[in-house]
Amino acid sequence: MKTNPREDISALLTRFRNGERRALAKVISHVEDHRPGFEELLHEIYPQTGKARRIGLTGPPGAGKSTMVERLVELARSDGETIGVIAVDPTSPFSGGALLGDRVRMSRVQTDSGVFIRSMATRGSLGGLAGTTEEVATVLDAFGMDVLLIETVGVGQSELDIAQQADETIVVLVPESGDSVQTLKAGLMEIADILVVNKADRQGSPDMVRALEDMVGLRKPGDRKPVVLNTIATNNTGMPELWAEIRRIYDELSSTGGLLSKRRSRIQLHLKKVVDRQIQNLLWNSSGSREMLEMFVKKIEAEEETPYTACRKIMNHRGL
Amino acid sequence: MKTNPREDISALLTRFRNGERRALAKVISHVEDHRPGFEELLHEIYPQTGKARRIGLTGPPGAGKSTMVERLVELARSDGETIGVIAVDPTSPFSGGALLGDRVRMSRVQTDSGVFIRSMATRGSLGGLAGTTEEVATVLDAFGMDVLLIETVGVGQSELDIAQQADETIVVLVPESGDSVQTLKAGLMEIADILVVNKADRQGSPDMVRALEDMVGLRKPGDRKPVVLNTIATNNTGMPELWAEIRRIYDELSSTGGLLSKRRSRIQLHLKKVVDRQIQNLLWNSSGSREMLEMFVKKIEAEEETPYTACRKIMNHRGL
Repeated sequence: MKTNPREDISALLTRFRNGERRALAKVISHVEDHRPGFEELLHEIYPQTGKARRIGLTGPPGAGKSTMVERLVELARSDGETIGVIAVDPTSPFSGGALLGDRVRMSRVQTDSGVFIRSMATRGSLGGLAGTTEEVATVLDAFGMDVLLIETVGVGQSELDIAQQADETIVVLVPESGDSVQTLKAGLMEIADILVVNKADRQGSPDMVRALEDMVGLRKPGDRKPVVLNTIATNNTGMPELWAEIRRIYDELSSTGGLLSKRRSRIQLHLKKVVDRQIQNLLWNSSGSREMLEMFVKKIEAEEETPYTACRKIMNHRGL
Repeated sequence: MKTNPREDISALLTRFRNGERRALAKVISHVEDHRPGFEELLHEIYPQTGKARRIGLTGPPGAGKSTMVERLVELARSDGETIGVIAVDPTSPFSGGALLGDRVRMSRVQTDSGVFIRSMATRGSLGGLAGTTEEVATVLDAFGMDVLLIETVGVGQSELDIAQQADETIVVLVPESGDSVQTLKAGLMEIADILVVNKADRQGSPDMVRALEDMVGLRKPGDRKPVVLNTIATNNTGMPELWAEIRRIYDELSSTGGLLSKRRSRIQLHLKKVVDRQIQNLLWNSSGSREMLEMFVKKIEAEEETPYTACRKIMNHRGL
C-alpha cells in the first residue's frame, strides 16, 4: 500500500503541534536527511519559532563540554524550563568514536521529557552542517523548547558557525590551554560572551584565569569583553554562577537590542542557505544539468574550454 | 598615477610564463585573495596545466607530516624534479600558531629555486578553501612544477578534500593512534593509497602496522587496498621506500586509467566551484541583491514570509 507523503506530513505536523516527542524526533530526521517535504514542514512550523533562548558552547576536545552541558540541562530543568541540546560533531576520521561516547553519558537526562538531545555528525560536509543545525534548531524552537544549547568541538570553522547560530556563546577552556592563550586571542574573543576555565582544580587554573582577564582588559572600548568564569563541572562548582551569568547576558542583550540584531543576521544567513540549497539542486541535481556538466567536463579535458569559459556558458544557459 | 589592472595582469602573465618565481608568488596571491582579474589569470594559464603529479598527505596533528614533507621535497629534488608544496591549515582558534611553527622549520628547502612552498590558512571558511586549494594547485601546475604535494591536518572534512584534489593520498599515522585503529577504518581506508606509520621507533609501532595490514587484508575485492609502510621521517628511515612507492602507484594509476578518472572528477568539482562562486556573487554581492535580501529578512521578521516562501520569490525574481 502506497502512502501519500503530503498526508503523512500533515499528520506528522498535527502530532508535532500536540507536543508528541516522537513526532519531534521524526520531524528532525526529516530535516536532517532532507527527506521529501522537509522544507514544507519547516515552512509550516516557522511561525512558531523565535521564542527559544539559544546558547552556543564550544571548546577544544577534552575541555569537559559534555559534562558542562549535562549540568546546564539540570540547571534549566530546576528553573522549570524545557531544553533542547544539539551536539554538533565535526567528526574527524582520526578522532573516531570518542565523541559518541560522550553522548552516551548524557543518557541520564535523556529520560526527562522536558529535555531533548540530538547529536549530529558532519560526515564530511561542514558547510552543509551549519544550515542543518539552524533548521534543527528551528524545529526545537517551534516545538516550544525554552532553551536551546548548541554544542560543538572547536575545530575548523565550527566555532564560528555556532556563534552565528546562538544568542550568546560560551567558550570552554582548560588550564592546560594556558600556554596558548596568546594565540587563542583573535578567534575566540570575537565570539565569546563567556570564557569558562573548566577543571579549575587543576594546576595552572588561576594563571589561566588571570591571563584571560588581562586579555579581556586590553580590549578596545566598544569591542566585546567576555566575562571570565571558572568551573569544575564534574562536581557542579561554579555551574549555578555560570547559569546565572548566561541568563544575565541574555537579559542584557534583550534590553540593548543586541538580541534583535543577532536574530536578524541569523535569519539572513538562514535565508541565504535555503536559496543556495535550491540553486545547488537546480544546477546540479536534475538530469539535464548533469548531462550539461558532463559535456563541459569533456570539453575541458579536450582543452576546448577552461572551467572559466564553461562557467560563463552554464550561467548564460540558465539566463544568469 | 593609476594603473590599468588588465595591463598589470598581462605583464604578470608574461613574467609568470618566463618562470619568474616572484610572478608565481604574485599570481598565487591574486588567486588566494580573489583579486580583480584572478579568474582571467586562471583561464589564461589553464591550458598549461595537467602535467604535475599531485600527492595528498594528511594525518592527525603531531604525526610528523611537516618533516615528512621536507624529506619528500628532498627526494623529489634529488630525482631532478621541481616540487610545489601547498600546506593547508584548517586553523582552529584552539590550536593557534603551532602549524605556523612547522612551516618555519621547512625554510631549509625554501631557498632552493626548484621548490615552492605556500601555506594557506582557512580563516573560518573550510568550504571556500577547497576551491582555493584547487586553484593554487592549478597555478603551480601551470608554472611547470613536476610534483605537487598538498598537505593538511586531518580535521573535519579537510582530509576528504585533499583526497579529491590529489592523484594519490598518503595518510600518516603514529603508533599512538593504535588504540583507535578500528574507528579510523571508515574514513581513511576510502582515501588512502598509502598508510604510513611514522615514528616507527616508538613503542607499539609493529602492532599498529600489523593491525593496519589486517584491516587492509579484510577489504572486499574491488575495494581500495592501501599499502602499509613505516617510516622514521626525522632520520630518513623508510623515506626513499615511501617515495618509490608513491612513484609506483602513480605509474599504476596512469596505466589503469585511474588517473584519468580522478582528473575528470577533479575537473568536475572545479567547474562546479567556479559556477557556485559566480552565482554567490551574482545573488548576494550586487547592491540590488543586498537590498532584496534586506527586504525579505524584514518580512521574515515581521512573519509575513518564511525563509522558504522568500526563497521561492527570490528564485522567481531571478528567473530560476
